[in-house]
Amino acid sequence: MAADNTMEISSILQGGYQHPLSRSWQARRHLTKSMLMYPIFITDDPDASVDIPSLPGQSRWGVNRLDEFLGPLVKKGLTSVILFGVPLNCVKDERGTPADDPTGPVILAVRKLRALFPELYIACDVCLCEYTSHGHCGLFAADADTPGTLDQGPSAARIAEVALAYARAGAHCVAPSDMMDGRIRAIKRAFIDAGFANRCTLMSYAAKFASALYGPFRDAAGSAPAFGNRKCYQLPPQAKGLARRAIQRDVAEGADIIMVKPALPYLDVIQDAAQLAPDHPLACYQVSGEYAMVVAGARAGVYDLRVMAFETVESMVRAGCTLILTYFTPQFLDWLSE
Amino acid sequence: MAADNTMEISSILQGGYQHPLSRSWQARRHLTKSMLMYPIFITDDPDASVDIPSLPGQSRWGVNRLDEFLGPLVKKGLTSVILFGVPLNCVKDERGTPADDPTGPVILAVRKLRALFPELYIACDVCLCEYTSHGHCGLFAADADTPGTLDQGPSAARIAEVALAYARAGAHCVAPSDMMDGRIRAIKRAFIDAGFANRCTLMSYAAKFASALYGPFRDAAGSAPAFGNRKCYQLPPQAKGLARRAIQRDVAEGADIIMVKPALPYLDVIQDAAQLAPDHPLACYQVSGEYAMVVAGARAGVYDLRVMAFETVESMVRAGCTLILTYFTPQFLDWLSE
Amino acid sequence: MAADNTMEISSILQGGYQHPLSRSWQARRHLTKSMLMYPIFITDDPDASVDIPSLPGQSRWGVNRLDEFLGPLVKKGLTSVILFGVPLNCVKDERGTPADDPTGPVILAVRKLRALFPELYIACDVCLCEYTSHGHCGLFAADADTPGTLDQGPSAARIAEVALAYARAGAHCVAPSDMMDGRIRAIKRAFIDAGFANRCTLMSYAAKFASALYGPFRDAAGSAPAFGNRKCYQLPPQAKGLARRAIQRDVAEGADIIMVKPALPYLDVIQDAAQLAPDHPLACYQVSGEYAMVVAGARAGVYDLRVMAFETVESMVRAGCTLILTYFTPQFLDWLSE
Amino acid sequence: MAADNTMEISSILQGGYQHPLSRSWQARRHLTKSMLMYPIFITDDPDASVDIPSLPGQSRWGVNRLDEFLGPLVKKGLTSVILFGVPLNCVKDERGTPADDPTGPVILAVRKLRALFPELYIACDVCLCEYTSHGHCGLFAADADTPGTLDQGPSAARIAEVALAYARAGAHCVAPSDMMDGRIRAIKRAFIDAGFANRCTLMSYAAKFASALYGPFRDAAGSAPAFGNRKCYQLPPQAKGLARRAIQRDVAEGADIIMVKPALPYLDVIQDAAQLAPDHPLACYQVSGEYAMVVAGARAGVYDLRVMAFETVESMVRAGCTLILTYFTPQFLDWLSE
Amino acid sequence: MAADNTMEISSILQGGYQHPLSRSWQARRHLTKSMLMYPIFITDDPDASVDIPSLPGQSRWGVNRLDEFLGPLVKKGLTSVILFGVPLNCVKDERGTPADDPTGPVILAVRKLRALFPELYIACDVCLCEYTSHGHCGLFAADADTPGTLDQGPSAARIAEVALAYARAGAHCVAPSDMMDGRIRAIKRAFIDAGFANRCTLMSYAAKFASALYGPFRDAAGSAPAFGNRKCYQLPPQAKGLARRAIQRDVAEGADIIMVKPALPYLDVIQDAAQLAPDHPLACYQVSGEYAMVVAGARAGVYDLRVMAFETVESMVRAGCTLILTYFTPQFLDWLSE
Amino acid sequence: MAADNTMEISSILQGGYQHPLSRSWQARRHLTKSMLMYPIFITDDPDASVDIPSLPGQSRWGVNRLDEFLGPLVKKGLTSVILFGVPLNCVKDERGTPADDPTGPVILAVRKLRALFPELYIACDVCLCEYTSHGHCGLFAADADTPGTLDQGPSAARIAEVALAYARAGAHCVAPSDMMDGRIRAIKRAFIDAGFANRCTLMSYAAKFASALYGPFRDAAGSAPAFGNRKCYQLPPQAKGLARRAIQRDVAEGADIIMVKPALPYLDVIQDAAQLAPDHPLACYQVSGEYAMVVAGARAGVYDLRVMAFETVESMVRAGCTLILTYFTPQFLDWLSE
Ligand SMILES: [Zn+2]
Ligand SMILES: [Zn+2]
Ligand SMILES: [Zn+2]
Ligand SMILES: [Zn+2]
Ligand SMILES: [Zn+2]
Ligand SMILES: [Zn+2]
Repeated sequence: MAADNTMEISSILQGGYQHPLSRSWQARRHLTKSMLMYPIFITDDPDASVDIPSLPGQSRWGVNRLDEFLGPLVKKGLTSVILFGVPLNCVKDERGTPADDPTGPVILAVRKLRALFPELYIACDVCLCEYTSHGHCGLFAADADTPGTLDQGPSAARIAEVALAYARAGAHCVAPSDMMDGRIRAIKRAFIDAGFANRCTLMSYAAKFASALYGPFRDAAGSAPAFGNRKCYQLPPQAKGLARRAIQRDVAEGADIIMVKPALPYLDVIQDAAQLAPDHPLACYQVSGEYAMVVAGARAGVYDLRVMAFETVESMVRAGCTLILTYFTPQFLDWLSE
Repeated sequence: MAADNTMEISSILQGGYQHPLSRSWQARRHLTKSMLMYPIFITDDPDASVDIPSLPGQSRWGVNRLDEFLGPLVKKGLTSVILFGVPLNCVKDERGTPADDPTGPVILAVRKLRALFPELYIACDVCLCEYTSHGHCGLFAADADTPGTLDQGPSAARIAEVALAYARAGAHCVAPSDMMDGRIRAIKRAFIDAGFANRCTLMSYAAKFASALYGPFRDAAGSAPAFGNRKCYQLPPQAKGLARRAIQRDVAEGADIIMVKPALPYLDVIQDAAQLAPDHPLACYQVSGEYAMVVAGARAGVYDLRVMAFETVESMVRAGCTLILTYFTPQFLDWLSE
Repeated sequence: MAADNTMEISSILQGGYQHPLSRSWQARRHLTKSMLMYPIFITDDPDASVDIPSLPGQSRWGVNRLDEFLGPLVKKGLTSVILFGVPLNCVKDERGTPADDPTGPVILAVRKLRALFPELYIACDVCLCEYTSHGHCGLFAADADTPGTLDQGPSAARIAEVALAYARAGAHCVAPSDMMDGRIRAIKRAFIDAGFANRCTLMSYAAKFASALYGPFRDAAGSAPAFGNRKCYQLPPQAKGLARRAIQRDVAEGADIIMVKPALPYLDVIQDAAQLAPDHPLACYQVSGEYAMVVAGARAGVYDLRVMAFETVESMVRAGCTLILTYFTPQFLDWLSE
Repeated sequence: MAADNTMEISSILQGGYQHPLSRSWQARRHLTKSMLMYPIFITDDPDASVDIPSLPGQSRWGVNRLDEFLGPLVKKGLTSVILFGVPLNCVKDERGTPADDPTGPVILAVRKLRALFPELYIACDVCLCEYTSHGHCGLFAADADTPGTLDQGPSAARIAEVALAYARAGAHCVAPSDMMDGRIRAIKRAFIDAGFANRCTLMSYAAKFASALYGPFRDAAGSAPAFGNRKCYQLPPQAKGLARRAIQRDVAEGADIIMVKPALPYLDVIQDAAQLAPDHPLACYQVSGEYAMVVAGARAGVYDLRVMAFETVESMVRAGCTLILTYFTPQFLDWLSE
Repeated sequence: MAADNTMEISSILQGGYQHPLSRSWQARRHLTKSMLMYPIFITDDPDASVDIPSLPGQSRWGVNRLDEFLGPLVKKGLTSVILFGVPLNCVKDERGTPADDPTGPVILAVRKLRALFPELYIACDVCLCEYTSHGHCGLFAADADTPGTLDQGPSAARIAEVALAYARAGAHCVAPSDMMDGRIRAIKRAFIDAGFANRCTLMSYAAKFASALYGPFRDAAGSAPAFGNRKCYQLPPQAKGLARRAIQRDVAEGADIIMVKPALPYLDVIQDAAQLAPDHPLACYQVSGEYAMVVAGARAGVYDLRVMAFETVESMVRAGCTLILTYFTPQFLDWLSE
Repeated sequence: MAADNTMEISSILQGGYQHPLSRSWQARRHLTKSMLMYPIFITDDPDASVDIPSLPGQSRWGVNRLDEFLGPLVKKGLTSVILFGVPLNCVKDERGTPADDPTGPVILAVRKLRALFPELYIACDVCLCEYTSHGHCGLFAADADTPGTLDQGPSAARIAEVALAYARAGAHCVAPSDMMDGRIRAIKRAFIDAGFANRCTLMSYAAKFASALYGPFRDAAGSAPAFGNRKCYQLPPQAKGLARRAIQRDVAEGADIIMVKPALPYLDVIQDAAQLAPDHPLACYQVSGEYAMVVAGARAGVYDLRVMAFETVESMVRAGCTLILTYFTPQFLDWLSE
């Protein structure tokens, strides 16, 4: 047929992906176990193991149960976790005093995990909202003309105190998720002055958006604000420019790792981060709502759970991430072993 | 407090997003009704109105029901649709002969819609898979040494014939979704030679991935392949490089609009497209599985449906899209009117 | 006809803009109501409502008339205003003391508008020229060898005092239009130190040119200098390089929004700004003379006013603006509702 | 005063523009007489000199009056003109036959001007709309299913015939303003084959927008279409992408000079052209409506005419133009002599 | 002839430069009188007018002869001069004390010229070599281990003192030619602190090479070093990298204008400067040896002097300069008037 | 002294060029003997050795004198020559028939030099002007309406014939200097068809300007045109854009080496060429007038000849050249041996 002859050399692409192996060669990078960081919830009842209904398959754990919980995963290849404190019994106040209480769940869990699993990399989320009476991530100005205004300087200073306490407890990494201006610089300054700058990695939630996907997490961590919302410090979902500026700022202020959160609806921002911080590890957080949505779709028969979990996480890898925080971590440890 | 004074000018970002309006200014572009294109299924029973269970809220429509179906939407501001033929009664063959049957559902629907709604912009998906006996999107080489090999030249030529038939019927736009090499060039050549190059827009499904998210569509359109899969012509999900090359190739071969499909797990590819084809309108298709997954998550209580629908679609806008194919179109017509 | 066959694929562009809808898709971004900021003149006679002949359709308003004036516009979708003080009864001096008089028109109007329209976004122009006895935008060196030389440091410090006073009064945004070197840095420093950095947005008139188009504004605001002109601080119209340097400097000094002024004869500078400050909202000011010129042309029958108003403002959008200060705001609120 | 000391080196810009001469140095390029090309209307009454009311100061001229009209301007430094034919007495038809009638006004004027002013550079606008019975710029497909569709190939071929006729008559430059796809390539091919490729410059109206600013010209040239409008071939005003693609296409098809039209509301597109075609002379056309609008504003007292004429044209120079088509040419010849 | 038909459209360039006017359009920028700055030698005999044999047509002038010398040139359009002091009667020392003697020739000449020609722009070369006993451009470290080492900090501080003295005397511009590290920053700091940052422009000899072309100047100014050479501070002729770094450094340290010197053998460096400092005026100095060489070639009959003078200076314009320091200035004032 | 302490790290450059060796390290590339190509004039009197007064030190040579002339230079390291034919006794015609006469001086010299010096690289300038009766570099159209117009296609075809004849005679390289459009493509096509594409290098005089510096060469070669000038095919000196386009075109048409000519006043164009053709050897021609000018300056005492010859040629190296055609070649063979 004559039309055959009109095929131009420059039209041909299919030659490059006819075989499963050549299809895999088209990826720039592949998902591996060491790219996974597992988010876990530590509560202040040391013997707790309580399921979280809105986050299928996840629980709140007490310090005494960590061996039983993580031991099998470490054997399958788990290399890192990130700890979220869930204080249910403490007295909260305006400054979030319990955040760096040396007997609080996070600090105890860090010490315990260092002892149990010497090879495990332990990151700590750093924020005040689980520990403040108002449930916001920063401190309020006492004498502000407009009530309810965050006080930037003291907030950053307080965050830095907490981060330093976690570092002193033995955390390999601290990850401030509060989105207060200047907290990366404040933490780095505190680390340098205390001699921790070369002992504890600083991972910035640099581009954290005010998303609809945090609901199950707030159930898990009990961290919904008592009033208002977080739209004055978490980024507006459409604000690509602010996200880019935040990434560049946090690089300049000393972040060692950059994170984008949530992940799936922000793959373009992940790609921006990969270009703006080409020399840093790049993390993303497949947040609670993303996880729950993917599970709900599978339960509704839209797709196979495993195929879809891979498509979502491999898209994050394709967009540029080298580190993935995901609740699917236990399953991937199995799937990647096959 | 001393810490106040150490806040650096370069640390401050929150000044730009304290107010709902300044938050909206941080977006580079906003979703409007004219950016929405509604995908609809046209079957060959002219009086049909059959619900599609796996695609909640969507139906297969016969030509006689289009006024009743679309009239109210046009009144609310619907500006464009894209037609998918669902032939249930025709005789399929190796060449997909019914695809350009002048009495087939797509051609009849184009003529009907042009008459009913003179202002409505009508695009037609172009593919062979709904019309071939083997259910694949191209033609097979009869004498190929390797059985089951697609014949690139004749496939592109056949696709071009179908596209030209739709253009002659009055389509404002044709959108080949087959992923055969060289079909953009073949269609454009056919359009030029027949005098349609300036009468019918050519929208390329330039980067269409072999995703897990097409299940509900295949139910709707009855287009699952009889054997094998489409991994030899749809792009591997991780293949960023192939996607970039396909976008550039289709621009060079005469595409007027570039599309990425699916949308949410490929936002980074959309952003690539926005950079590689900065001078073309950029479309994405929030495909059936994405739609169904978002709905399933809302039904499971993970988030509010409307907030999440906006977050997904506005993310596509943020990533660079200026045209969105989505099953949420009827709801957005309401939501954007408020 | 033979000639048909010689048409090259690469020649064809018309395929992409045959239909009104596909024409609209060729835009990268569309004008919406939330992109409009309305400049209004506040005088110190609280009951004033005085037409400004050279600025057709615009008036000077007293504080007591703001409800009557803006109420209907807010109902139509007005989302933001920028206030210009027009002090007719105050005693001016060398330092522009009345600029931050707590009983002056701007401060009173901010408080009034916050109370009347809680959703309205309120910006304040900041300058000294309406309040200085000499009518210049900065302060003069007392002991300079060359008389008439501006004193850069004290000028920036005074501008920052005024800006802070407006922020304390409740302005969501301050916009210094004076063009003194270093004033963005001075204001940001003052905001940080006083705790306003995350409560008040800083919009810089970063590239403000010494244009012929300010005549009607000077009539409106009574702000012509008593001697000399502003060519030593407003930018020379041909000075693309200075404009680019000013944009980059103001980004570095903490501006949250960048503005170019005037707009129509500086669309190329707007485009420069969009490239140099890709992550900031970008504003332009369709100044009094532009507005009056477009109106005069329509009155002379050169074109239809509405079509031309859209062509000018949509050109600003095309060049990269996401925020437009324009006296056409009331009309656009109607036109965009149709 | 302490504040003096806080002024940063990087804040200072005013040092570069304190003196009128240093202000002028901030320009990258200056307006000179040889950058001006004067558009003139040639009618087929050889003795005509008829004022055009909507285009103040401009007239339609007959061939016998050209010496009297242009002689004084050439003495003042006029170096080039572009001719627009205004046939009032010819018989128009579907193909625009009179366009290359050897006794038509344009061809006669070219011969006359070559004889009168051997140093004068003579460009000819090339279009069909003044010569077709339907008033459109291309030819219609006789057998098209949809009536009123332009036939791209034959239109380009016909435009090329006319351009070649003007080149044979002695034009130094032809400038097709029709916006038909493929006409630059068709003209260049015709020039090469006839031996005119190195004897006649090809200036493309590469980015010509469907603006509101052509009204006075249509009065002058009698070129309003008999039905419909030109939105299917002139570019949509917001279509930056199409404009960029057209510029790149016309460079590839052999244009020697690139033009953007209109000028003032498209300065950003001029800047795009300067980047996309950095090695070509770049022209813009300050069209009839721009000219009339600037004049109307001056008459309304908005500004001084001369200052504003300079601000508009120097903005075009700043944006990147090296050649300006303007009705202000006679005035600039005086102003630039002072 | 068959060969005709093989000419490709893409081969054709000659179409763009057939006519003298279209040839001139191929330039991006044209030489104008305001781009010329005339270097003049001021000696401390107030009545001197002494020819400089090695620099044909140039003289050393006393302050009392400036009216007679420059008056006619100002009438022809001279807009700026740069002054070089030639102290023949003063007592030189290690610190170059006479450089800012208030009765020295440069300071007296500045005051005189400001009075005589209020519109004339007056720049002052700033260096120590004419005033130091050792004839070098900086100060030597007294206690240096290595004798003969320049002391960078004190050198820059001394240069800044001299520059400030010239600014106080009324110079519109100072131009340090010494090539000491840090002197741009030192001068800018001194100007800011003394209130001159927005009253005196700072032109940096940013890329000044150790060329063979300074001989006639040293005769004119009597500035040959008493020992050694200047290769430790003037740039090595082949050192493109150092030149690029110096340009970027001086921009960052506050230079208002960047200069390259000499000009003709460094056109590629000028082009580098145009790319590295796109937003600054760019000057070059056609130095004494270049001038003398061009004159010598004309006297030897190699070319016509005027044609060659234009070819050299227009090459500087083509390479990116917007300001030319040249001894041909008086001739160009005539040539550009024709 | 306090000022010492203010020296910023970023101010320091002098540390990199204190020692002669570190100064030499600042160059990116150094002049070597193999970068020199010596232009020589071959006349048709086989025993000629005639001095050329306007080109000091150069002569016209007959074929029989080549051994005596070049033998000593080859011993000193001469590696390549480029031959220019100077036919004084032949009959010239419109087509330049003697150019490829197998008994003409160039072809005889090629054969002779191949025999005498087997290692010597022999390039031949290719042009028609020395052989046409009219003295122009191309052929004229016989039937052109405008007399004196070059016929592009036949000119390129004729140039290709001559180039092929030189290649057949044994030239290692042909270098067309005629500047006819399309001649690189015509030569390359001819070479491919005749099997010489991989046997003879094609060096394009890609950017050859209509300079004032060719006078002595025309004396040497007797190649002044009988009428008119070469401004319609040699590039206008200010036409950077045309030069850039010519370089890109010639690369695309198959040039193996790109040349810029003259060299010193076009160093910026050399730098453009180095960027536009980064993968090609880059030549420049220090033409007769440059050579004579440098010599005249030295004779007038402006500088030392050797120092200046180095400064000019090393500037060409710095700008990007890797091959230098220069009449200083014999001297450099000595100077580079020291
Ligand atoms: Zn928090
Ligand atoms: Zn298909
Ligand atoms: Zn002001
Ligand atoms: Zn037309
Ligand atoms: Zn010196
Ligand atoms: Zn020649």
